[in-house]
Amino acid sequence: MTLIDKLNWRYATKKYDASKKVAADKVERILEAIRLAPTSSGLQPFEVLLVTNPEKRAQIQTVAWNQAQVTEASHLLVFAAWDNITEARIDMMFDLTNEQRGFINEGWEAYRKQLKGIVAARGDKANFDAAARQAYIALGVALVAAAEEQVDATPMEGFDPAAVDEILGLKERGLRSVVILPLGYRADDGDWLVNLKKVRRSREHLVSEIA
Amino acid sequence: MTLIDKLNWRYATKKYDASKKVAADKVERILEAIRLAPTSSGLQPFEVLLVTNPEKRAQIQTVAWNQAQVTEASHLLVFAAWDNITEARIDMMFDLTNEQRGFINEGWEAYRKQLKGIVAARGDKANFDAAARQAYIALGVALVAAAEEQVDATPMEGFDPAAVDEILGLKERGLRSVVILPLGYRADDGDWLVNLKKVRRSREHLVSEIA
Repeated sequence: MTLIDKLNWRYATKKYDASKKVAADKVERILEAIRLAPTSSGLQPFEVLLVTNPEKRAQIQTVAWNQAQVTEASHLLVFAAWDNITEARIDMMFDLTNEQRGFINEGWEAYRKQLKGIVAARGDKANFDAAARQAYIALGVALVAAAEEQVDATPMEGFDPAAVDEILGLKERGLRSVVILPLGYRADDGDWLVNLKKVRRSREHLVSEIA
Repeated sequence: MTLIDKLNWRYATKKYDASKKVAADKVERILEAIRLAPTSSGLQPFEVLLVTNPEKRAQIQTVAWNQAQVTEASHLLVFAAWDNITEARIDMMFDLTNEQRGFINEGWEAYRKQLKGIVAARGDKANFDAAARQAYIALGVALVAAAEEQVDATPMEGFDPAAVDEILGLKERGLRSVVILPLGYRADDGDWLVNLKKVRRSREHLVSEIA
């Protein structure tokens, strides 16, 4: 299947078969795709929680409009953005880069200083917003990765982020949940969306050329 | 190549070969992947500008830290999010859905009303932020699509969005640029990043299990 085929195959699954589990190697490849997703300045300003605890998932469902996918899907991923982009977090990634590459790049070091100035100037809220956007790049890549594995997925924003943060202890870790992603296999029956036509704006409506 | 291979192949290209153009069918498949990218409530709250006009691209370069990729790459995409999510825009997408599917889904109509209440309550700025995040899902998908086509790409946030909006006349269209994406082919020489190790946090550092 081409990427276009995969994007046409996938849909926001509304009803999972709770008896079907996604194999561990497939979950790992989806996580690896998330890990490799590009982010601004290479910061990867988010973490991913793989929630397997059934009680926690049941609690999350109660603050997610009671959507059953949260508990009936095989796995649940929570994308949590950094609550702020701090000097310490920038240093963590730039130090890791030096360590992994085995040398110090002068241009990159100058950029480290510049970036610290940028994030200090724009403030906590704008930094969180910037971090959240990067998590959505990874979400886009994760959705392709799931489709590549023929695993169904449901990107979900319909939940109370502060409540999910409380359930998972994210605030203490400097994280804020931004989007959740059940993964699993569609049920044979009971999914109102599966047979409906996928609707997108036309190419002419979505894309314009400035020639 | 698997998706993991593609993600390892791609990198934020720093130097393009200005003489190499991306074939039109490849550009169209990248745009089609963007068009098929999922978004919250199916709103697709953004547009994509394909900027081919050389003067406009030169102007954009001047407000993008003078980064040469803006003009040396074969093509330039600008992702522009809706400046607000209005009732009219929600109606546009829900009406399109009814038209494409050929019937009115009562549950979806109830959700249309609920969604209008949600966006009115959270206000313009939060709506723009939400729209911008959706554009980043499409950016993630676009980066995979480019890699699938063996086309190089450089996701760039280092530009003045208000200035780009001015250059492209986006404000009048209710749009705000959020990220730009040169597409093309890497130069044989002069790219400081191409041979450096791709750095990512470890799986253990990025992903934690709540078991």
